[in-house]
Amino acid sequence: MELQFLGTSSGTPTKTRNVSGTALRSAGGWVLVDCGEGTQHRILRTNLSPHDLRAVFVTHLHGDHCYGLPGLLASAGLLNRTAPLAIVGPQPLERYVRGVMETTALQLPYPVRFIDVADAAAADLLDDLAVTVAPLSHRIASYAYGFTEKVTERRLDAAMLAAAGVPRGPLWGVLQGGNDVTLPDGSPVRSADVLQPPRRPRRIVIAGDNDMPELLAQAVQGADVLVHEATYTEAVLEKIGPGPQHSSALRVARFAREAAIPSLLLTHFSPRYQDERGPLTLADIEAEARAEYGGSLFLARDLARYALDKAGMLTELPPR
Amino acid sequence: MELQFLGTSSGTPTKTRNVSGTALRSAGGWVLVDCGEGTQHRILRTNLSPHDLRAVFVTHLHGDHCYGLPGLLASAGLLNRTAPLAIVGPQPLERYVRGVMETTALQLPYPVRFIDVADAAAADLLDDLAVTVAPLSHRIASYAYGFTEKVTERRLDAAMLAAAGVPRGPLWGVLQGGNDVTLPDGSPVRSADVLQPPRRPRRIVIAGDNDMPELLAQAVQGADVLVHEATYTEAVLEKIGPGPQHSSALRVARFAREAAIPSLLLTHFSPRYQDERGPLTLADIEAEARAEYGGSLFLARDLARYALDKAGMLTELPPR
Repeated sequence: MELQFLGTSSGTPTKTRNVSGTALRSAGGWVLVDCGEGTQHRILRTNLSPHDLRAVFVTHLHGDHCYGLPGLLASAGLLNRTAPLAIVGPQPLERYVRGVMETTALQLPYPVRFIDVADAAAADLLDDLAVTVAPLSHRIASYAYGFTEKVTERRLDAAMLAAAGVPRGPLWGVLQGGNDVTLPDGSPVRSADVLQPPRRPRRIVIAGDNDMPELLAQAVQGADVLVHEATYTEAVLEKIGPGPQHSSALRVARFAREAAIPSLLLTHFSPRYQDERGPLTLADIEAEARAEYGGSLFLARDLARYALDKAGMLTELPPR
Repeated sequence: MELQFLGTSSGTPTKTRNVSGTALRSAGGWVLVDCGEGTQHRILRTNLSPHDLRAVFVTHLHGDHCYGLPGLLASAGLLNRTAPLAIVGPQPLERYVRGVMETTALQLPYPVRFIDVADAAAADLLDDLAVTVAPLSHRIASYAYGFTEKVTERRLDAAMLAAAGVPRGPLWGVLQGGNDVTLPDGSPVRSADVLQPPRRPRRIVIAGDNDMPELLAQAVQGADVLVHEATYTEAVLEKIGPGPQHSSALRVARFAREAAIPSLLLTHFSPRYQDERGPLTLADIEAEARAEYGGSLFLARDLARYALDKAGMLTELPPR
């Protein structure tokens, strides 16, 4: 499983950071979580294509998370996409998109299916990923999406094979495929008896804007990675007050420590934090989070990719 | 007067060209013609600011000309803009923008005033520019906007001053300001008698998508510059057929020659034309236009600036 960030700025784009959009690649293809304005422009700088996007999950309907959706849909149409596209999100997502389509004469050569967040888990949208939804706390309805692998591959247990007397050869493949066999000597061997238990499925939770990370306590159980906004440092959050309903690095990091999440990926930084030099920098966010959280911590950058291996380890990939 | 292109691609953005958006600077500030997705991202790379944008003119409601408008409005709000903003365009522009604002909880700290194209000329929106509107031919209602200087500055005529016996000194300034004077010897001098006739006002016409350049015959009278789409070369247009209702370089250039327009600025190029290498390049568009048109020809590039001097000469400015 791989994450690629298409935008990591809060509210407005900066010269180096676009507004929110996160691509999640898995065995079955890619999905997009949020689609701020300019997401399709970022996609041009990746090897992702709107043509084979499987689904879009919108965390909430603030513009910096959804104003790129009409353009992405239009461009997929101009690329002659024909595959249906599922768009998941809170109300009034469908009214927003259909309103834009109607007033701007946008006709798509593929069907769009809108799925309310309440129905997202049951909709079984993705072959290889189960989806969960958790409500958050923000100025408007906001959600986190959890993506859990449906683990189907199984590995043979060499010791069990030896004990059962199965000779190395084609029978191993048959057993690994879940089928029982009969050995040349007539003794039966059941696949289930020579397979290792399935590995723990990987799970990534991607949260929308939220000022109460603790609402994710249940959602992050078994999660390898939490992607969460850290719009401000705590000092700036306290100066601004609770009105915007965002999280500080401190609050998210503290939650991640208490919830024992192995990897924390922070994003959605206020444009007041400069990348390098300035009165406020991303280093302030990072230092605040590191002081609270001893796990594997990353501050997302636009176009950066992060791979989650089968052991549950998150690492940043080198640029292509 | 100065034009700066914020997008020059048709339909979808490319790595080097955004979708449509054109800034027009004049003595009174700047206005924007069209606002495709990502226009605010381009603005970040200029010295323009959404904060002091005077008005937006939308040529037509296709997404590549207006999907950046909600994000630009939102960002101007986050920049604490308070000045009212006029948005001019065809129906259902207001319904489009208001629908997005309502469904995405966008509240702006400044008033937005929607003006239908039919009322744009009479609205007298800009202190220093008169606006004219011309209907075009496209799949949906599309318009060209003409911007003509309201010339107020006047120059003194040295020969007339000498003939009237006005000594060099403060009286010159008084006369230039439009006021009559009495000389020390008691003889009266009228300002109107010593001023040169006002210079010809500069005029720039910026057209939306259009497959019938000849519709602009009246609008370009007295124009120094026409900005017009040249989506295709003629061969590609003929291969695609008339359905998209765009112009070829040939058709626009031929019209510009017949209408004797001094400067022609082509834009809105199909992404199939590469900047440099490729089976089709912008050089194809340029060669086709040059073969028809002997005036001052430019193919717009993103972020390029073009200055129109008081003599009516258009030149490309060096990058900042």
